[in-house]
Amino acid sequence: MTRAVSFFLSGAVLAAVFSPVSAQSDVRRTAHHDFRVVPVAEGFEVPWSIAFLPDGDILVTERAGRLRIVRDGKLLPDPVPGIPEVVARGQGGLMDVVPHPDFASNRMIYISYSKPREDLGRAGTTAVIRGTFENDGFTLVDEVFEAVSRGGGHYGCRLAFDADGYLYLSVGDRMASPTGDLAAHPAQDLSNHHGVIVRIHDDGSVPEDNPFAGRAGAMPEIWSYGHRNPQGLAIHPDDGGVWLTEHGPRGGDEVNVSTAGANYGWPVIGYGVNYRGGTKIHDATHAEGMEQPVHFWVPSIGVSGLAFYTGDKFPEWRGNLFAGGLAGQNVDRLTIEDGRVVARETILQGMGRVRDVREGPDGYIYVALEARGDGQTPIVRLEPVG
Amino acid sequence: MTRAVSFFLSGAVLAAVFSPVSAQSDVRRTAHHDFRVVPVAEGFEVPWSIAFLPDGDILVTERAGRLRIVRDGKLLPDPVPGIPEVVARGQGGLMDVVPHPDFASNRMIYISYSKPREDLGRAGTTAVIRGTFENDGFTLVDEVFEAVSRGGGHYGCRLAFDADGYLYLSVGDRMASPTGDLAAHPAQDLSNHHGVIVRIHDDGSVPEDNPFAGRAGAMPEIWSYGHRNPQGLAIHPDDGGVWLTEHGPRGGDEVNVSTAGANYGWPVIGYGVNYRGGTKIHDATHAEGMEQPVHFWVPSIGVSGLAFYTGDKFPEWRGNLFAGGLAGQNVDRLTIEDGRVVARETILQGMGRVRDVREGPDGYIYVALEARGDGQTPIVRLEPVG
Repeated sequence: MTRAVSFFLSGAVLAAVFSPVSAQSDVRRTAHHDFRVVPVAEGFEVPWSIAFLPDGDILVTERAGRLRIVRDGKLLPDPVPGIPEVVARGQGGLMDVVPHPDFASNRMIYISYSKPREDLGRAGTTAVIRGTFENDGFTLVDEVFEAVSRGGGHYGCRLAFDADGYLYLSVGDRMASPTGDLAAHPAQDLSNHHGVIVRIHDDGSVPEDNPFAGRAGAMPEIWSYGHRNPQGLAIHPDDGGVWLTEHGPRGGDEVNVSTAGANYGWPVIGYGVNYRGGTKIHDATHAEGMEQPVHFWVPSIGVSGLAFYTGDKFPEWRGNLFAGGLAGQNVDRLTIEDGRVVARETILQGMGRVRDVREGPDGYIYVALEARGDGQTPIVRLEPVG
Repeated sequence: MTRAVSFFLSGAVLAAVFSPVSAQSDVRRTAHHDFRVVPVAEGFEVPWSIAFLPDGDILVTERAGRLRIVRDGKLLPDPVPGIPEVVARGQGGLMDVVPHPDFASNRMIYISYSKPREDLGRAGTTAVIRGTFENDGFTLVDEVFEAVSRGGGHYGCRLAFDADGYLYLSVGDRMASPTGDLAAHPAQDLSNHHGVIVRIHDDGSVPEDNPFAGRAGAMPEIWSYGHRNPQGLAIHPDDGGVWLTEHGPRGGDEVNVSTAGANYGWPVIGYGVNYRGGTKIHDATHAEGMEQPVHFWVPSIGVSGLAFYTGDKFPEWRGNLFAGGLAGQNVDRLTIEDGRVVARETILQGMGRVRDVREGPDGYIYVALEARGDGQTPIVRLEPVG
């Protein structure tokens, strides 16, 4: 068995296969950098997002509805008080957390979550709040966004500030079924927030130059639409491009670059098929007025956190995009040239479902893993070797 | 062990792992088509290329210097007589075979090989001959190309006719060392055929509109240059684009689209590192006047045969590009959109080193594998299931 496997697995993958438990201390080899997987903190329940504060604290959301603090390499036992109630079932929960660009002076953090709204059904909707993080507690300031959406899962929920202080965030299609008249699917309808990237000011107000601001019947917060369930969102460090990964159907997880007013085609066009039975969803992969993905995964990896690398610990990886995968249990490194993905390398695999990938202020790459039965450390970082 | 593996391997790969010997009869699942791997013929010694003749015969080159015939599902015991002596050591040997577009009337086939030339060192050079294939024998007509090159391996050697009857072929960089003044490397020098795509008429004469025809000091056959070792070559069925895969260094196997007069940068620019020690080759990934790859593999797969699929047995794969891999032991399916590779799926893996991938006239996909110790059938075809 061992021999059959070694025929076609290489590098980082092999290390994972042959050291399923002790892998943290092993060197993983990739094309440009070798690294170790080093534990950061453990004891989380489905950590969803990682945020770094200037004083060295690390905030971690747990899907179940808790915000946690990692301080000096330890997970503090008490969750941060002041977090509102979330829909903690299915795909719902506490999701992304990002500090305001001026956090050092205003102590503001932004949190996305599935908000209970009994009038919208048990699954509620996607909402974003802001508040101050002081003395290890969260004090709500206000809600800056609440999606006009209803349905099941597919909340989206990633948050990203660009260099000009605009807040981008994602909302999924809420699992609206891709059947019947596909052009009438909620993700193709601008009068709601199903399957969109949103762009707002940090106080929740709508920028005047948003593409649909002032258009009758359209939600003015929408920046782009026709998405399925974007759960990775990252701003390109050089040109400010809004990059996202979205869960597609089977064989259809996509990388897109979101531009003002663009329609990304879900569910009218696409490359994937239904998870059950492999039946067809789309009539076409292309249509006039609908954007093509920059890249997509076959098979789908179940995309999660997304980050551009800008640090100095892995110089050959600067400018690369790192994408997490749930089902794939992987972190993929994507090489971007002129707005295209020209190569993809799986640098980490087999340590558990990956929920988030971030660059730390120290230049290490942090990965949030879902805890497995063996109690393996769920937040790790990659440190270069040699 | 089994469980650890199943965490991150899916579909076709799993089938290969768990049925290393009997895999031919198992169904392999991919995003769009399920298929079986069906034996075509066995008993080859490193089959390098597959060609289909209108009467149903299949020609297969063996690297050792033999041209073989598969007729009615059987490998005929006698090699085709009339094949010239080849350099049958190292990377050298009998390589590609393609029928002339008018084979049905002229019975002409083209063969590329490493040609012994003691004055050029033991490894000789890359040459292409044409001759008639009749009564199961080859009769040489003439040599249509002989590369001005010397060195070790990296012969290149793929052949492809386009719809207008031009013959494209590849020559590698002959392993000239990428050290010292990289801009002075033979692959950057138009006065030889190291690292080029060549374009000639079917009789070996040079088309007047070749990009360097008439330029003093330049080889007029050159269509594009700055390649390393292109061993996959295929003409796009719709637009006639000249697609190639080339062996790069570690983490640098590339897909390129060869255009008239373009410089693909080897060894001045690139994405890979040296196989030994991972040391740096290139100072940059970009340079003015040098082309970027359309796609590259990290890690490198050791690219081999290349084919666009146009058949009706796998309708969802029409227009896709299929690339073989030696070290990767894989066949990858590449989805092309607007001249870009937007997705890549490994559809076959773990059955042995893949030397060639071709579409048969029956619409099945044929794969030449290097025979392994267990005597497994080295030429197989993929047949859809369900």
